[in-house]
Amino acid sequence: MLYPFLSSTQARQSRIDLLSSMMAPLKIYGLAMSTCTGRVLATALEKGATFELQPVDPFSGGCKKPEYLALQPFGQIPVLQDEGLTMFESRAIARYIASKYEAQGTPLYGRSLQERAKVEQWLEVESQNYNPPIAAAVCELVVKPMKGAPTYMQIVNESLAKLEKVLDIYEDHLSKNEYLAGNFFSLADLSHIPFTHYLVNVAKKGEAITSRKHVNAWWLKISSRPSWQKVLELASKK
Amino acid sequence: MLYPFLSSTQARQSRIDLLSSMMAPLKIYGLAMSTCTGRVLATALEKGATFELQPVDPFSGGCKKPEYLALQPFGQIPVLQDEGLTMFESRAIARYIASKYEAQGTPLYGRSLQERAKVEQWLEVESQNYNPPIAAAVCELVVKPMKGAPTYMQIVNESLAKLEKVLDIYEDHLSKNEYLAGNFFSLADLSHIPFTHYLVNVAKKGEAITSRKHVNAWWLKISSRPSWQKVLELASKK
Repeated sequence: MLYPFLSSTQARQSRIDLLSSMMAPLKIYGLAMSTCTGRVLATALEKGATFELQPVDPFSGGCKKPEYLALQPFGQIPVLQDEGLTMFESRAIARYIASKYEAQGTPLYGRSLQERAKVEQWLEVESQNYNPPIAAAVCELVVKPMKGAPTYMQIVNESLAKLEKVLDIYEDHLSKNEYLAGNFFSLADLSHIPFTHYLVNVAKKGEAITSRKHVNAWWLKISSRPSWQKVLELASKK
Repeated sequence: MLYPFLSSTQARQSRIDLLSSMMAPLKIYGLAMSTCTGRVLATALEKGATFELQPVDPFSGGCKKPEYLALQPFGQIPVLQDEGLTMFESRAIARYIASKYEAQGTPLYGRSLQERAKVEQWLEVESQNYNPPIAAAVCELVVKPMKGAPTYMQIVNESLAKLEKVLDIYEDHLSKNEYLAGNFFSLADLSHIPFTHYLVNVAKKGEAITSRKHVNAWWLKISSRPSWQKVLELASKK
């Protein structure tokens, strides 16, 4: 027994802490203010995984340099390097971190195969139904102005109308469930935070969220988590 | 020992077969000819999981009936029911089946955490980069004519141009790797089959695939698997 003076729970946590401290930090290439990098950073923070952020700025062509394209041939951020593994796609990286650090931090996949199935279902709803319209709106309202490009309000309005239809289903679901996958905060909830933050808090066009009672309560709960607050703090330093 | 007359490998397989035969069949609501149902059916077939297909036809309004919307509020196919679980989103269902039947059939997630990371990466590339343009082209070329709606060739051409750019990266990757996630057939390869089948074999507009040496070799290999051939056989009966 490693720590004979500790309770079994404390000893387990100590073993986990020891294991975690022995793991090399995750190396994350990206930008804390970017939505997809934010998804990965929030996951690492929820799991208590240590990481180093290696800045890559897509606005100054950092994603198109040959040495970066060798890591990520599509020229997007983020990229993860860990123990000889190089991988990309933020939702895949988030799944990897949630799996590798399964024994510590927030149980982002739930605690059973069936809970995990529901997490995967809502991760896919985020990816297929929620992300396309909200990303299109945020691109017009936030990203294009940063690049000095014009905002097309027709795209914004059409995207927000699509998002409203998706959120009608969320409202009904969240009236019966505290979080998307059930009564626990999961990777599915987390994955919604970055783009929703930009729509609500940066573009100030979040009526689709804030006007729906249960969606808004869920949004306030997930966005106030210490992990996301830490991501915002990291982003404000750049 | 359950089967003392068998080798340890045979005994392990027999235990798996026994376990599998004791599991209730998966209940899959959908249409074998639909791309997303096909993804789920091919996964079940690769894993040797028994299933019952419960026909739901989106073309005749089957997805919009109240009893179906109670299972799938977005009104899409497929839906899975298994041991009290009801879930939707084809890529999430495929992940669930691959996890539940991990001990049998094709190791669709690979054999290590790092292999699984690569499977998840390419599943996300399929979902985020490959699927949007190919689905848009197949919708115009195949789905709209089935509904008696006009095909917009401008959308087809723009979508195929986007797909070509994605496939340039696939061609380079597949010149160095037999399959997407490495040297093993995985859920990531499987997930590409249904829409590619419609573009190449039904719409006959698959030059983007067939003109690329390594992409084409990969396509011929993955589409000739018995699992996919069985899906086509099921689809031809409807």
